[in-house]
Amino acid sequence: MTQTIQAVAFDAYGTLFDVHSVATLAEQLFPGRGAELSKTWRQKQLEYSWLRTMSARYKPFGEITRDALRYSARALGVVLDVAAEDRLMSQYASLSAFPENLGALRALREAGLPLAILTNGTPEMVDISVKSAGMQGFFDRVLSAESVRCYKTQPEVYSLATAAYACRPDEIVFVSSNAWDAVAATWFGFDTFWVNRSGAPAEELDTAPCATGHLLSDVVDYVRTRRERPRGERARRRS
Amino acid sequence: MTQTIQAVAFDAYGTLFDVHSVATLAEQLFPGRGAELSKTWRQKQLEYSWLRTMSARYKPFGEITRDALRYSARALGVVLDVAAEDRLMSQYASLSAFPENLGALRALREAGLPLAILTNGTPEMVDISVKSAGMQGFFDRVLSAESVRCYKTQPEVYSLATAAYACRPDEIVFVSSNAWDAVAATWFGFDTFWVNRSGAPAEELDTAPCATGHLLSDVVDYVRTRRERPRGERARRRS
Repeated sequence: MTQTIQAVAFDAYGTLFDVHSVATLAEQLFPGRGAELSKTWRQKQLEYSWLRTMSARYKPFGEITRDALRYSARALGVVLDVAAEDRLMSQYASLSAFPENLGALRALREAGLPLAILTNGTPEMVDISVKSAGMQGFFDRVLSAESVRCYKTQPEVYSLATAAYACRPDEIVFVSSNAWDAVAATWFGFDTFWVNRSGAPAEELDTAPCATGHLLSDVVDYVRTRRERPRGERARRRS
Repeated sequence: MTQTIQAVAFDAYGTLFDVHSVATLAEQLFPGRGAELSKTWRQKQLEYSWLRTMSARYKPFGEITRDALRYSARALGVVLDVAAEDRLMSQYASLSAFPENLGALRALREAGLPLAILTNGTPEMVDISVKSAGMQGFFDRVLSAESVRCYKTQPEVYSLATAAYACRPDEIVFVSSNAWDAVAATWFGFDTFWVNRSGAPAEELDTAPCATGHLLSDVVDYVRTRRERPRGERARRRS
């Protein structure tokens, strides 16, 4: 008996969409400070998503992204005028795909698997990015944290996928380039794949993602193996 | 009619206890990398507390502190042997008080106010730090996140104080040197005081702490003013 995969769900930013161009623009606007600004911005964006989730103070992801940018500029002591802020924010509307992504998504579609995006982003943000990255037609669902008014790693967000496909968590392959997201999704019960593009260290959270690779194309092989592997064998490997 | 203050509750690490000696030891062990290691360690410690709270995967604070240290050493590419790890961890057992703290706590006690510690730390960790910092006898309660098996900013943690003193949130003055903690406690409804020792930028969370100062001794003046201010006036100021 083989394991059934009902769908493959992808995290959006950093996993499907290359956010590198945001850092590039930050460096153009603030020479010598771009990397630091980008890093602080991203960290603060996540921090605000977590604090607001724990405290039940939801605010849409685009807005907390702007809040995090303003905080980061002030923390670094750089002057962020309206024009610079708008340019950095609108950079999210023109992201590209990582080079291997379109081929990987196509292969998964051809294997007959439904593909979804499971993201903190709002549907509007994601729709723009899907178009910009040339990914129209690949996904049959965009599952946004907005519909449950909290963010990852709150289980309600991951539950959007099991609800959408009316299946168990381990019937969803969840793909993220964020180690913390991949770990928390493993806690939730998803079959998880960490796309560790940057060679980041593993988290010390007592749980590893079910599999790890370097590129989105590695997911294609993983899904193929998963479909061929008997369920009992998988259960033993996990125990 | 004056506003009633039922108790003053303090965050522990960074607010009551000076954790600077931990950074100093990190620099001795890893010359040139101590500040970076300390910063990453602290950030990761908080991150793990937030992720585990959202995902209902509680683990005691001392253990996640050790996990965060191991992650940080690996992320920085420094070799953390058992001896170095144990020295850094045990540094938490010999923290000192900030210079003005004992005088400030004494003044609040003499004003007849019950004082509490409201902390992510376990009671064992905090008891050791209280002794090390010479604060025995000042606090009538140590309220630990351990008893609710989740971390700040989950409301259950802040609720420990209202439950302990059988009062409304705005009858507790909550003091923290962490801006995010002071903001989330304000969301909860506490009367909050942010001890911004380092001149950190304010958070972009649409809410400011009720008051801000630079030293714990500033809390003494704040509490005095609060007791003299009519309730109606305070309500107007907040609206």
